[in-house]
Amino acid sequence: MIAIDWGTSSLRGYLLAADGQVLEQRRGSDGILACQGRFGEVLSTLIEGWDGPLLLSGMIGSRNGWVEQAYLPCPADTAALAQAMRSYDDLLPGRTLWFVPGVSTGQQHGVPDVMRGEETQLVGLLAALGDGTHVACLPGTHSKWAQLDHGQLTGFATVMTGELYAVLRQHSILGKLMQDDPADLDTDAFAQGVDRSAEPGGLSHHLFGARTLGLFDRLTAAALPSYLSGLLIGHELREHRGDHATVHLVGSPGLAQRYALALAHLGVQTQRHPEDLAATGLFALARQRGLA
Amino acid sequence: MIAIDWGTSSLRGYLLAADGQVLEQRRGSDGILACQGRFGEVLSTLIEGWDGPLLLSGMIGSRNGWVEQAYLPCPADTAALAQAMRSYDDLLPGRTLWFVPGVSTGQQHGVPDVMRGEETQLVGLLAALGDGTHVACLPGTHSKWAQLDHGQLTGFATVMTGELYAVLRQHSILGKLMQDDPADLDTDAFAQGVDRSAEPGGLSHHLFGARTLGLFDRLTAAALPSYLSGLLIGHELREHRGDHATVHLVGSPGLAQRYALALAHLGVQTQRHPEDLAATGLFALARQRGLA
Repeated sequence: MIAIDWGTSSLRGYLLAADGQVLEQRRGSDGILACQGRFGEVLSTLIEGWDGPLLLSGMIGSRNGWVEQAYLPCPADTAALAQAMRSYDDLLPGRTLWFVPGVSTGQQHGVPDVMRGEETQLVGLLAALGDGTHVACLPGTHSKWAQLDHGQLTGFATVMTGELYAVLRQHSILGKLMQDDPADLDTDAFAQGVDRSAEPGGLSHHLFGARTLGLFDRLTAAALPSYLSGLLIGHELREHRGDHATVHLVGSPGLAQRYALALAHLGVQTQRHPEDLAATGLFALARQRGLA
Repeated sequence: MIAIDWGTSSLRGYLLAADGQVLEQRRGSDGILACQGRFGEVLSTLIEGWDGPLLLSGMIGSRNGWVEQAYLPCPADTAALAQAMRSYDDLLPGRTLWFVPGVSTGQQHGVPDVMRGEETQLVGLLAALGDGTHVACLPGTHSKWAQLDHGQLTGFATVMTGELYAVLRQHSILGKLMQDDPADLDTDAFAQGVDRSAEPGGLSHHLFGARTLGLFDRLTAAALPSYLSGLLIGHELREHRGDHATVHLVGSPGLAQRYALALAHLGVQTQRHPEDLAATGLFALARQRGLA
């Protein structure tokens, strides 16, 4: 089968064997934003020479994607997600395309939250972890924290850490004292930011400290971005890590490393999982639906 | 005497009688950023025909202003601030200019915080309130929360609420679903935001709700900016209002009204003070130093 993980700014295709083994992996340069609507063309090129049932997950199923998919409300499990997949025969000549839905919470009452793409990675994680109660963190522009309970995704929360970091560096007064592109994470400054997040005053007060520490030459222009990152990630962790002994991290190596570092600093163990959990998840959904 | 309140984007001059009464008030269009270094020229024009000792407060004493002034560490009172003022005879022909210093906390230990201009408004507030223990909020791009204890400014904190609001609207995904320039505050949506700030999850999680409430048509494009404002102000209040029965508000009528509304929503009384408290403060400092 063919598994497609198609996000806002990335596109990954996997050719899987009958047992789910990855036979071949291809990366496209076109996330859905760069496609400008030429989804069929881009996908045809990516999967040239590949055969089998075709499943897609990620922002490709959003309002700005190819065909908008509904959100399945939480709690949701692999069976419910597989059942909610919709197939289309008219998008690509000679192919049937299966789209995975997104997942939502609080859509009727309270404040809604949504994910699209992460639910498929979590299906992959559930397949790896099996039963039990787990908490998973998927860091990114918008991080997701997911509660997994006996094979079900029971709840989740989105935290805008990555976007806040980018927007504050590029467009707020905080960026003015910061070096544009520091080579590496300054682990001391990062840990200082994580520690600061435990103090009273709240995030928007702590943020101002990323200016004054620079003004008084207490942190260098190269160290300040790491401090800001530690501050934002620290606030995120303290609100969402809960009381689990281990947090399961799913994300790019660079980001996952920062979160692992911050969690270790707080005395929490982490287990890191490969980013291509989406392929594992799409295989589990295909098998559940009888497609693989 | 002549009192000058010169901020980043505003310039106000007051001619005061011997008893501190405002005889005349003039507004310049040039905050320090718009002056491009022509401070003497701009001030000469503003005070034409006015006579008397000349005191200045605000960002005019910052690194980007006319002559950089030191920060006086907290706790600070009217006498200490008056004593720390520095005079210059060489900036404007035939005039002596007195600059009020800024105030800092945590400059040696912990995370520093700074104010410049607000300390003078607080001197004015102290003159009005007299003894006792008070908390004052000066809303703005960077809000200040100040503890006043028996005539002393004992501590303060800066909160980046105003800048966060602007940056998130203009540069983050949250702005995409928002109306550009809604006519008025939507008080219901504002109160919803204030309420939301009491729930678990933290600010950067709550911010994402300002997207999903729009996505699910639970709040309109015109209401979302008010929700975001309520969310940010709500978080600020919960961290900084303390347990005082009354919060003293010093700021522009529009902003002070929002804060008063949010505080009333939390069951806290407010007392509003005029923005031109800077003139009162400069008069108190001049008198203390024997200049008026």
